[in-house]
Amino acid sequence: VTIKQPRVPVDRFADLLGPGAVRTGEAAGREFYADESLRAAAVEPAVVLTPANTSEVAEVVRIAATEGWPVTARGAGTGLSGACIPVEGGIVVSFERMADIVEVDLENQVAVVQPGVTLAQLNERLAPTGLVYPVFPGTDSASLGGNAATNAGGMRAVKYGVTRHHVLGLEAVLGTGEVISTGGRYVKTSTGYDLTQLIVGSEGTLALVTEVTVRLHPLLPSTTALLAPFSAIDEVAAVVPRIVASGLQPLVLEYIDKGTMKGLLRMTGMNLGLSATVIGQTEAYLVVVLEGKEESRVEQDCAALATQLYEAGAQDAFYLPPGQAADLLAARENAFWMVKAAGADDLVDMVVPRSRIPEYLRRVQELAKQFGSRVYGCGHAGDGNIHFSVYEPDEQQRSALLSAIYSMGARLGGAISGEHGIGRSKRQYYMDIESPEKLALQRRIKAAFDPAGILNPGCIFTAQTQ
Amino acid sequence: VTIKQPRVPVDRFADLLGPGAVRTGEAAGREFYADESLRAAAVEPAVVLTPANTSEVAEVVRIAATEGWPVTARGAGTGLSGACIPVEGGIVVSFERMADIVEVDLENQVAVVQPGVTLAQLNERLAPTGLVYPVFPGTDSASLGGNAATNAGGMRAVKYGVTRHHVLGLEAVLGTGEVISTGGRYVKTSTGYDLTQLIVGSEGTLALVTEVTVRLHPLLPSTTALLAPFSAIDEVAAVVPRIVASGLQPLVLEYIDKGTMKGLLRMTGMNLGLSATVIGQTEAYLVVVLEGKEESRVEQDCAALATQLYEAGAQDAFYLPPGQAADLLAARENAFWMVKAAGADDLVDMVVPRSRIPEYLRRVQELAKQFGSRVYGCGHAGDGNIHFSVYEPDEQQRSALLSAIYSMGARLGGAISGEHGIGRSKRQYYMDIESPEKLALQRRIKAAFDPAGILNPGCIFTAQTQ
Repeated sequence: VTIKQPRVPVDRFADLLGPGAVRTGEAAGREFYADESLRAAAVEPAVVLTPANTSEVAEVVRIAATEGWPVTARGAGTGLSGACIPVEGGIVVSFERMADIVEVDLENQVAVVQPGVTLAQLNERLAPTGLVYPVFPGTDSASLGGNAATNAGGMRAVKYGVTRHHVLGLEAVLGTGEVISTGGRYVKTSTGYDLTQLIVGSEGTLALVTEVTVRLHPLLPSTTALLAPFSAIDEVAAVVPRIVASGLQPLVLEYIDKGTMKGLLRMTGMNLGLSATVIGQTEAYLVVVLEGKEESRVEQDCAALATQLYEAGAQDAFYLPPGQAADLLAARENAFWMVKAAGADDLVDMVVPRSRIPEYLRRVQELAKQFGSRVYGCGHAGDGNIHFSVYEPDEQQRSALLSAIYSMGARLGGAISGEHGIGRSKRQYYMDIESPEKLALQRRIKAAFDPAGILNPGCIFTAQTQ
Repeated sequence: VTIKQPRVPVDRFADLLGPGAVRTGEAAGREFYADESLRAAAVEPAVVLTPANTSEVAEVVRIAATEGWPVTARGAGTGLSGACIPVEGGIVVSFERMADIVEVDLENQVAVVQPGVTLAQLNERLAPTGLVYPVFPGTDSASLGGNAATNAGGMRAVKYGVTRHHVLGLEAVLGTGEVISTGGRYVKTSTGYDLTQLIVGSEGTLALVTEVTVRLHPLLPSTTALLAPFSAIDEVAAVVPRIVASGLQPLVLEYIDKGTMKGLLRMTGMNLGLSATVIGQTEAYLVVVLEGKEESRVEQDCAALATQLYEAGAQDAFYLPPGQAADLLAARENAFWMVKAAGADDLVDMVVPRSRIPEYLRRVQELAKQFGSRVYGCGHAGDGNIHFSVYEPDEQQRSALLSAIYSMGARLGGAISGEHGIGRSKRQYYMDIESPEKLALQRRIKAAFDPAGILNPGCIFTAQTQ
């Protein structure tokens, strides 16, 4: 497959989509050159297309497949691994005009949305219904299409799972321009291969998603948050599997190390009732949120949880008043912006088996020390998905440190990305670690969806050349 | 691809696996010719192989791929759609010697098992741990490998989901003989394509599963069951979405029509406290089981549930004493054997959106009337997955009736199989209904895993010829 650069296909697409849906150069806007990843270089596409419906998307892909022009899908551009950064001189298909909530189906508890719909839009629409879409990857400006492409996660995954566990069906345009529908408004099916789950998390390399059917859940109105400072990292990591095993089903089970907490407190001006003495003795914090139908049950469960935390060695276990809990979680969600502002050079979001968290945390710090770099952590302890911000300006050093972390985490039974995806920024690390048989199989699967190799070439693995 | 019949490859395999692991003809046993499906014809394989480990499986597949010999994987043979029925003169790989529980990992709440491990074996091993594997497709003699291949479901899917939602990782042998490992001991990952979910439910057509990592859950010790008779089918169907929306998270939410209940009561000799008057006025029953950590909460929730059932028009809402509840559910699980003994000619296990159950039930009965056939139903109302036993001895009539039911259910947004799989027995119906683009895509995906086309050819769709 030879990926060619489009030679100003503007007229052809303008005839098809209307001139307003075809933008080039500076008129398109530099926001299309990149996503939120810290290190990926911005790339200028030849053209940004904004089709209005599935047929237009299919026609664009059909033309691109015939001509060999690369196509990169783009939702809200909030990704963290460069998956929606265009190929130089390629086509960007932006879903900003396909942003309708097609239906909220209360009886089947599903929402059917176009890919450009944001979480904010969906949440607003769901607010009066008593149903929620619980996946929240840290920003409500993210689009559902992008979330499906990345298999986005977030804090509530410890209870509800990630995007994958909520996508029940898709409409998608293959790399041939053919349109398929997968799944439906049901949770179980044994009818052919699970194309839905194959497309979810494929980062735009297999198909362009043009409609998403997601599962909703009944809103549980009562929530309570506990904050527990620990003086030893091993203690906080060791209690996590016990909380999961307790059956209390925490909505949130977040780990925040002392460096990250210091930054969060400074950024927000909160003090959370933490005395200087406690802060001084603390190595890491655990934030646990429980939710339920009834306040009295949540209170009982929180008491049991507090006991469990004390028994595990917590210095304390505060009930956070609702306002403070919301502020702390919002600050935690915004930790990314804090580390970006603080000049972090890269992010690591490996997932490891929950039981290996203590060892993983210790070894990451050992490696950081060995490389003379700074590494701060916080993240989804309940899922084994800790995020590290890496401060190491030297590119070679940084790359060697990241390689060492990824190899070490893989030996502990982990995977390179828990929720951000491989995209372009982790491609080389992924290809270095993944088995050649699995890489080759994935390339063959890609060819089954996209025989011309035009869909997001260079994302997840390098583009195949023949 | 030309599928050839092995020309007595017995010696070659005996050299490889040892003579005890290679059986032919009557020595293999007729149980290898079929599964539990009602109508699929028994087929004699050339040879039944029982490899002892993954390398032996890989070597068998490598030889078969080179020679073009068809390979059909077999677990416990409890399938209901003929997926493990061999190709005439082909190879059966039986996993009876690969039946070890490799590890029960309490901290990560996973079990790692070989494919021949049965649910009974796993449940016995889990009993003292406080953890459960909640998927129960009606018989504990089923194997985990077979469950993964079929994406088996069962009664508890309304709360816990199906096999798919519990398989976190696999070791599998591709059609090339290559061995891959997918996933791991974690719930979330965004690292390459989801090969785990693609292999689950692929009915042995993509790979031979040689190890399965499944998610476990904390045992909730308290359960209570309610039985509610309704005098109108629409009422019972209409209350189902409301129970799901209530957030009570029923463990079981089963529908039993009057004909099926009559058979169950006769088969077991139970009366469940149902008076002749109530039985006479009842069109269908709902059985709901709630579970929880604490008995007092479960009792409260049951009271709320009973109110909901009465408001929906239930004639009554009995608490079933634990013994009776277990007996009724066991009888419901065994309904398959009852209908088999009663001479049922086929089974339908379509899944439809929960909201369409009333219409689906009504239309199935209209079609049965139109064809002059008898059709009885019971099943997983909470999932939209109702099972029908079809009594229609005339093959042409039956086939026309099934076609009509499948087309009608598909128009309601359903899929042909909720949990039994397509296998060989529903292949033609599936190929008639599925879009040509999706069929072609699935064939290309199969070729990516199995370029020689040797893995279970003729299952899900007809074998590809070039």
